[in-house]
Amino acid sequence: MRRRLLAASLALSLGAAHADEGMWMPSQLPDIAEQLRKAGYEGDPAALADLTKPPMNAVVKVGGATGAFVSKDGLVLTNHHVAFGVIQYNSRPDRDLIGGGFVAADRAAELPANPDYRVLVTTGFDRVTDRILTGARGKSGRAYYDAVDAATKAVVAECEREPGTRCSVADMYYGTDFYLIRQLELRDIRLVYAPPDAIGNYGDEIDNFMWPRHSGDFTLLRAYVGKDGRPADYSPDNVPYAPPAHLQVSTAHVNEGDFAMLAGYPGITFRHRMAPEFANQVEWQLPSRVALYKRIVDTIESTAAKDADAKVLYAAQLASLKNGLKRAQGELDGLRRSDAVTVRAQDEATMLAWLGRQPAAKATLTDIRAAQTVLDKALATRERDQLLAVLRSQTQLLRSALTLQRLALEKAKPDAQREGGYQQRDEALITGQLKQVQRRFSPAVEKAVLAELLAQYRALPASQRVPEIDSVFGTTAESTQAALDALYSGTKLGDEAERLRLMSADAAALAASTDPLLQAAAKLTPALLRLENEAKTRDGELLRLRPAYMRALIGFRKSQGRAVYPDANSTLRVSYGKLTGLQPRDAVVYEPLTTVQGIAEKHTGEAPFNAPAPLLGAIAKGNFGNTADPKLGTQTVDFMTNLDTTGGNSGSPVLDARGRLIGINFDSNWEAVSASWMYDPRYKRAIHVDARYMRWLMDKVYPAHHLLREMDLPVE
Amino acid sequence: MRRRLLAASLALSLGAAHADEGMWMPSQLPDIAEQLRKAGYEGDPAALADLTKPPMNAVVKVGGATGAFVSKDGLVLTNHHVAFGVIQYNSRPDRDLIGGGFVAADRAAELPANPDYRVLVTTGFDRVTDRILTGARGKSGRAYYDAVDAATKAVVAECEREPGTRCSVADMYYGTDFYLIRQLELRDIRLVYAPPDAIGNYGDEIDNFMWPRHSGDFTLLRAYVGKDGRPADYSPDNVPYAPPAHLQVSTAHVNEGDFAMLAGYPGITFRHRMAPEFANQVEWQLPSRVALYKRIVDTIESTAAKDADAKVLYAAQLASLKNGLKRAQGELDGLRRSDAVTVRAQDEATMLAWLGRQPAAKATLTDIRAAQTVLDKALATRERDQLLAVLRSQTQLLRSALTLQRLALEKAKPDAQREGGYQQRDEALITGQLKQVQRRFSPAVEKAVLAELLAQYRALPASQRVPEIDSVFGTTAESTQAALDALYSGTKLGDEAERLRLMSADAAALAASTDPLLQAAAKLTPALLRLENEAKTRDGELLRLRPAYMRALIGFRKSQGRAVYPDANSTLRVSYGKLTGLQPRDAVVYEPLTTVQGIAEKHTGEAPFNAPAPLLGAIAKGNFGNTADPKLGTQTVDFMTNLDTTGGNSGSPVLDARGRLIGINFDSNWEAVSASWMYDPRYKRAIHVDARYMRWLMDKVYPAHHLLREMDLPVE
Repeated sequence: MRRRLLAASLALSLGAAHADEGMWMPSQLPDIAEQLRKAGYEGDPAALADLTKPPMNAVVKVGGATGAFVSKDGLVLTNHHVAFGVIQYNSRPDRDLIGGGFVAADRAAELPANPDYRVLVTTGFDRVTDRILTGARGKSGRAYYDAVDAATKAVVAECEREPGTRCSVADMYYGTDFYLIRQLELRDIRLVYAPPDAIGNYGDEIDNFMWPRHSGDFTLLRAYVGKDGRPADYSPDNVPYAPPAHLQVSTAHVNEGDFAMLAGYPGITFRHRMAPEFANQVEWQLPSRVALYKRIVDTIESTAAKDADAKVLYAAQLASLKNGLKRAQGELDGLRRSDAVTVRAQDEATMLAWLGRQPAAKATLTDIRAAQTVLDKALATRERDQLLAVLRSQTQLLRSALTLQRLALEKAKPDAQREGGYQQRDEALITGQLKQVQRRFSPAVEKAVLAELLAQYRALPASQRVPEIDSVFGTTAESTQAALDALYSGTKLGDEAERLRLMSADAAALAASTDPLLQAAAKLTPALLRLENEAKTRDGELLRLRPAYMRALIGFRKSQGRAVYPDANSTLRVSYGKLTGLQPRDAVVYEPLTTVQGIAEKHTGEAPFNAPAPLLGAIAKGNFGNTADPKLGTQTVDFMTNLDTTGGNSGSPVLDARGRLIGINFDSNWEAVSASWMYDPRYKRAIHVDARYMRWLMDKVYPAHHLLREMDLPVE
Repeated sequence: MRRRLLAASLALSLGAAHADEGMWMPSQLPDIAEQLRKAGYEGDPAALADLTKPPMNAVVKVGGATGAFVSKDGLVLTNHHVAFGVIQYNSRPDRDLIGGGFVAADRAAELPANPDYRVLVTTGFDRVTDRILTGARGKSGRAYYDAVDAATKAVVAECEREPGTRCSVADMYYGTDFYLIRQLELRDIRLVYAPPDAIGNYGDEIDNFMWPRHSGDFTLLRAYVGKDGRPADYSPDNVPYAPPAHLQVSTAHVNEGDFAMLAGYPGITFRHRMAPEFANQVEWQLPSRVALYKRIVDTIESTAAKDADAKVLYAAQLASLKNGLKRAQGELDGLRRSDAVTVRAQDEATMLAWLGRQPAAKATLTDIRAAQTVLDKALATRERDQLLAVLRSQTQLLRSALTLQRLALEKAKPDAQREGGYQQRDEALITGQLKQVQRRFSPAVEKAVLAELLAQYRALPASQRVPEIDSVFGTTAESTQAALDALYSGTKLGDEAERLRLMSADAAALAASTDPLLQAAAKLTPALLRLENEAKTRDGELLRLRPAYMRALIGFRKSQGRAVYPDANSTLRVSYGKLTGLQPRDAVVYEPLTTVQGIAEKHTGEAPFNAPAPLLGAIAKGNFGNTADPKLGTQTVDFMTNLDTTGGNSGSPVLDARGRLIGINFDSNWEAVSASWMYDPRYKRAIHVDARYMRWLMDKVYPAHHLLREMDLPVE
């Protein structure tokens, strides 16, 4: 295994294509038909090309992630963690569906989900590039940004005039192409089958990202519609939705090396970002984030050490910071291990050299250089921008004051023109945040965090400093400390009633307030709006200029005989690859299939390794029947592939060479935490529940034979 | 791999033989010649049968562990950690041999070891069973014990009359056979070659027991003798010792599956203990030790939490307790995983059934039953015995008082008749311990620990309680607390000068002391002596009775076509097996060879993962030459075998099928921590430095070409 991986690493370092990289739009599959077949796919790639037609429209958005119809009567298979809100919503002290799991004995026993839970079925996917860009052409900067924004809002509003329809516009290849996505919004979703969380979430945070996994992270829901077949709110009179297509769960066995394919809604990747963006991410963004988070953690811990209350109040924020720190360090380690900066830089240099040899390359090169200039300019204030972002995200009272000021400003506009996050529909969320302050705030800690951040701010060169910040917080350690003391001793914002009262105040009322923190926020807000405008101007320019880079990249890859998938943007994508292990480090090999023996090995009797007695009993009994892997001679649990996934792919169906469902995606491996920037074939893996494990659980451990029959699956 | 291991596990659970288990006496090798050849050994097993003849007498005892002569001029290869004292002894602020390593440019530059450092060459190995047992026959209990003890002392004393000779008597098969071992004691040992500790101890405690390992844990010493060829203290006039044999370091490559053989001095194993002893170990001894250590840890931590000084004073004791806790838990987990109690019980039951069918089995069965009765009886006071042991080992002042009392008693006897540990040669050690108290003691913590232990003691049934302990410490929580308060407020033993002064006091002076803790120790000592006598009586009985069990076992195994090796007892043993990986848990596989890439992967720049720049540079350069593994295409570091080892095997040479040295043993794996009781072929592995790594380091990284030439090894 080691030598195979060394070879792969060499290929990568040469910037060569890796066959299994790619989050393809279904419409691209006919273009890569040859490589798909070579990889082992036995169907017709053209049959997968339309995501509004079977079988692709069996893949749906569920609760923000992915799922798939698996019966003609609207049964949806997704992750336990994706359906967790539904399970929790239906749990009561006397009916613990989280701990005990749930099997609906019949359809009447299926339990309605929380009313805001949705299943979205894609019904339209249309290129609207011209409509989106017409108004923007000839413009630049902020005007370009605003024109695209306005056109997008108009297209969506028009589309959503049809009842029961959710619409969105997807930007492909960074401003190159725009697609209008139309989805049927199913609103009556019911819980059908869930294993106990000790199965569905076996290992929890300890195992998260850590192969080998032994989680049965799946749940079955069912979508219902009105008797007229149209989306409807929950009603006992509703009937199961008849999906346009559903997937067949496989009864075949899977082995290392087998072809696998996955369809789902990956959220965001940065694979086609420009080389300087890679360099910035690895050389500055991630290391500086690690250092900054460490300083904040140290500051909170040392300040809270003297105060037991503060320790409790900041526990969640500390956990979140440490998690962010761990993720950033993991991403950094991964990108360094993959030598991402060099690989991307060499590849881009080769591309630009190629471009220089093409006819009419001049205009494209001009745009690319201009985009590089925009990025370069942003570097000049990156330290300040990072500090200002953290100044808001890591404080409670200061953030509340800034939010109240901004809300008052936005409320003066018609709702449709308000900034996102400050519209009427956002007010409940803001109220919630303002209430939470009480449980997460201590003045001593917040002042210490601000003192630390402002000390770093004061160390910045004058070119990065902001007059309003200097004026509010002072320019020396002494004046900053005095300012903080005055702000936090004088403010009434520590009082929940006061914060909530101010939510309904208008700009004039706020301006008249003598609260020192509100006054500070009033002084800072114009500066923040100015910086926001600069950022949107930059974003508009990049939206205008990046298509030149993407055109060059697509042309260059075509010259290499390769297609280019757009970076992930929460639209339906297909990836393909195979079941394969991993060598995470020298002399350690991960095999691609786990077995129930691993559940027993990990079992401690305490969460998150407290396997339920029926499961342990069934494992000890060893009665696996037709779901047992014939080669391993036991029951498998999870398997690993090299499929290209990212956040949002939770619940994605994993298919075999003939399109049958062999598993469901639920996790990836720690070594691949940097894959949002670079696919390294040595380390990028995805982790799936083996369909055979789901079948075994439903057949023999927590039986639901009627559901197996509904899915045309054998019952022993 | 998984299926192969499952098969092995099945075999084990049936109590069947595993070919690679065994720490064989060299004299047994001709008996197992067929299985040795079948395993791949290409030499003549008969040639290995005499440990006083070549090549076996090339294997020597070094610094309490194992080493081997590797040149005709007395070069000894052993572990860096076995020679660490020598390296430390020669380090000075201006000559950091620990951090920088050492290469003696020529023989004149070789550095003398600390004067008590020894290399022992075996020159005699003679069966003395009759001499040892003659005086014991017809006796039982304590008398049997004392007779064996006296005969042993006499034989050793007689043997050691020859100058330069160290002698000892080894008990094989638990009292069945006794061997007199005669060793040449080389006293002038010099340091020749040591890598920096960042190589020799790469990974330190973090990696200890944890495959994959990347340590270059080796060092070269040289033994010197007087010009007359006889052992001598260091003198510049001494000459290199010409060993009777030396091993040739291999220049061949090794691969997974290759035959391997190891010779060394394993310390102690319990493989042939009786089934009730296995049950006691797994069902009571280890779990109760874990629980008891946890309570002590909790008590120390919660008491010391209020006192920064106490935290520092108890840091070492806490670390040691936690390490003991971890080891006990690891051993317990391992024995449970191997189902050791059932496997041993079934095997023993089958043996006894077989024995019942043999002629004249009655006397043997009677002895076995009697031995079982002795063991059963010991169970009746196991809780008390465990508590009393901990009462001494986990206290400082109480232990000091008990030591002073016992020393005064022993000093009244002729030195030769004193109890081991209280002889004249032990007094320096006792002084050291009494001095150490100062750095490891706080009255509040010791009282809290004693209160906890005595509370457990008071909860014991009356049959286990000891009148003297009840009298000194009281029989209720209140009286115990009052007693502890009085003892620790009144004692002067917290004063170092007072403790040292009392070392020279005789029994009468001590008896006259009014120090409350000394008075308590005086009351307790007769009880402890009484319990010690009971233990020796038990030991004597078992020494008398166990041979029946061993005879039965040997006969039974013979009927199965298998030989029985004696449990380890620090005498020279040979094990054989092969290079093989390990499946430590479901879906995780350890490969049997690590590479220098793993060193770079682990390198953090901070100890214990701070690889020296010359090593990292050489790895990056990739100039491995003839030491590079042709299959892996890179330089290996360590490898893993299934050789049967235990503590004491450090430094053991690992040989290939033709007897050439391919590595040196230095560690084992965490999964095998229970192997001292049971060899589980699924988990028992030993870890070795690859000779190719040593050769590469000496050729290209910290060159010592003259030493390579001396060992008849190529220089590139």
